[in-house]
Amino acid sequence: MLSDNREVIERRAGLPIAIHRIAIRDEGKDRGIDRKLFTTDCEAIVNDPEIDVIIEVIGGVEPAYELIKSALRQGKSVVTANKELMAKHGSELLNMAAAQDLDLHLEAAVGGGIPLIQPLKHQLAGNDILRLVGILNGTTNYILSKIEEGGDFGQVLAEAQALGYAEADPTADVDAFDTTYKISILASIAFGRQVDPAQVSRQGIRSITRKDVEYAENLGFRIKLVGIVEPTGEQVRVRVHPALVAADHPLASVRGVYNALWVEGDFVGSLLFSGRGAGGAATASAVVGDLIDIVRNIDDEGKGSAVPYAEGGEVASMDNLTCRYYLRIRVSDRPKVLGEIAQVFGLEEISISTMDMRVLGEGQGEITFLTHPAREANVQAALRALKSEPGVQQVENCLRVLD
Amino acid sequence: MLSDNREVIERRAGLPIAIHRIAIRDEGKDRGIDRKLFTTDCEAIVNDPEIDVIIEVIGGVEPAYELIKSALRQGKSVVTANKELMAKHGSELLNMAAAQDLDLHLEAAVGGGIPLIQPLKHQLAGNDILRLVGILNGTTNYILSKIEEGGDFGQVLAEAQALGYAEADPTADVDAFDTTYKISILASIAFGRQVDPAQVSRQGIRSITRKDVEYAENLGFRIKLVGIVEPTGEQVRVRVHPALVAADHPLASVRGVYNALWVEGDFVGSLLFSGRGAGGAATASAVVGDLIDIVRNIDDEGKGSAVPYAEGGEVASMDNLTCRYYLRIRVSDRPKVLGEIAQVFGLEEISISTMDMRVLGEGQGEITFLTHPAREANVQAALRALKSEPGVQQVENCLRVLD
Repeated sequence: MLSDNREVIERRAGLPIAIHRIAIRDEGKDRGIDRKLFTTDCEAIVNDPEIDVIIEVIGGVEPAYELIKSALRQGKSVVTANKELMAKHGSELLNMAAAQDLDLHLEAAVGGGIPLIQPLKHQLAGNDILRLVGILNGTTNYILSKIEEGGDFGQVLAEAQALGYAEADPTADVDAFDTTYKISILASIAFGRQVDPAQVSRQGIRSITRKDVEYAENLGFRIKLVGIVEPTGEQVRVRVHPALVAADHPLASVRGVYNALWVEGDFVGSLLFSGRGAGGAATASAVVGDLIDIVRNIDDEGKGSAVPYAEGGEVASMDNLTCRYYLRIRVSDRPKVLGEIAQVFGLEEISISTMDMRVLGEGQGEITFLTHPAREANVQAALRALKSEPGVQQVENCLRVLD
Repeated sequence: MLSDNREVIERRAGLPIAIHRIAIRDEGKDRGIDRKLFTTDCEAIVNDPEIDVIIEVIGGVEPAYELIKSALRQGKSVVTANKELMAKHGSELLNMAAAQDLDLHLEAAVGGGIPLIQPLKHQLAGNDILRLVGILNGTTNYILSKIEEGGDFGQVLAEAQALGYAEADPTADVDAFDTTYKISILASIAFGRQVDPAQVSRQGIRSITRKDVEYAENLGFRIKLVGIVEPTGEQVRVRVHPALVAADHPLASVRGVYNALWVEGDFVGSLLFSGRGAGGAATASAVVGDLIDIVRNIDDEGKGSAVPYAEGGEVASMDNLTCRYYLRIRVSDRPKVLGEIAQVFGLEEISISTMDMRVLGEGQGEITFLTHPAREANVQAALRALKSEPGVQQVENCLRVLD
């Protein structure tokens, strides 16, 4: 991107930008770039006094964490695309940068090329953020879109792996660690305090079957893996899970590898940002945008705009979450089963909005419920109680509705 | 907004923000704000040495133009929501601000509260912009949405006026001056040279009837008033007109008073930004976001980031535009009419994709065409030629397709 778009980039940056060194892991690989630029010694780059700006696209906490700290200590501004590192240590690193009047920009860490972080920090900064809902992982959104088209999870995952959309070890994506890091960063920015990703309620998409997608469709929903941020007084509730999204909600139309963020602010109302959330070109767009800002700032002898947030964001318990729930339960095909379930729901003050009951054969049946708004703690208690009901064989799925 | 969200705004700005004076036109009106702040003397505010930042939300070229120049000369940074002024004099004003290391921000001028201008200037700055397509006027989008629901233009406009969505004199909206100013600003930013709004090809929505909306729907399109920016080598083509947008394009789903911008960049791919494009609260969100950036910059003793562009953007002629066209033609209900029209099209190398022919009664008929991609100059020549065909009573509408 820096060489293809050199002219426009330098005009906008105000200074020429030269790549001085590139640290790589595998020296043997041909990358179509002058080999003299390459080194396998990351520290040599960070310590090079001729370098003004470091771009970190390693991923993972170490060695990126030590390298960025070392770069900042030596007065270099940094662009990073590292969601895990920034989710875990963003406050410390942004404060280090700000204390030294340096820039630390991370637009590429969330939503690939879609401008999300800087608009939250700048153009939307006067709003109290009422809610963020993000589809932030292209792999899982691709898988869910393919299940909608008739696939099943295992087969679609294998296809996604063959196409390079999913890693050989798909844990980071399908178990929603990736989305959790990204939504934690957005939560930290929106609320001005770092949210610990380990405290975020996290549920991946392994439980989603073709059947769930079909039931959801009949009820007027699509299933999307979402990250949600909501303030609850002094705390902030942050959660990542597959959710039933109303088919006419703009997020329901975000298909395939696309990402999107829905923002509700007290003054701005509802906004949607969407685009390609991953891939080399989209990531390059975000990294180069950040780099241009840093170079402009160097040209202006500016002080940097890392806009740090404090540590210690308090994550609200899920217990008081209130929303509608979708439950699919495998039961024995015999009398009184429905009564047993209804009684458990009644004791937990869960009332039913819609129900579908089918005989599966071999003495089994399946009941699907959409509830009225219910408290998470009550739903969890009901799930525990259902386990000891003799007619209930298995709660196959329990999903929240995006209300 | 500054008083409701004081705490979050001051935390993000780094300094307290106090409103020192407010210039108003009508002293009698009760605005629920301390009357001591009010004055009818705009110049007294611009000249007040205790004021650091001016917010201009007057609209129109004068007196805003002279006031902003005077404010900049006196070392005050400026936030403006003034699309007409910035479309006509943006280059001069941004360069004045940059020369004095001041900020001149205009996020509210385009798309209300949706962050568009700063993302184009910053996060997307490394991209060559391949195309911008904006739905940038809520009033006309509301009118077109209501026509889709079964209304006709005159009745829907009267309703919109009664609801306060449209002005008593609706010219600025329905004749697309508003969209033209906004797309001119975006074009100037994306291409780094000021585009003169007077050179932009402009067509409003007065010709759109319920019939056109229905024909478009049958062909798989919705009709939207769009502003489009496309580079054509050294020039940039900028046009504003109602267009047939494929029903499955994300812009087709932007309904009612919502605004949206579709951005195609060479690295970032396609992005969509959407939200509420007008109204006091959304405008406040953008103005306060700009103000926070300016206050941060004052706190940091920074140099301002007006990011100016030069004068002299060359607007490409429409003649070489190639797209599909929709035409609705009233004809005499007699033999050979279709042959006459087909011959005119053939001479201009316009080939037909879809056709619909209906008898209207009283010796009249109506023929609707969707063409294959054709050159604008040829279509205009065909429209002239059709006027002298004896069987053609009137070309009722000719609309471009967003291809």
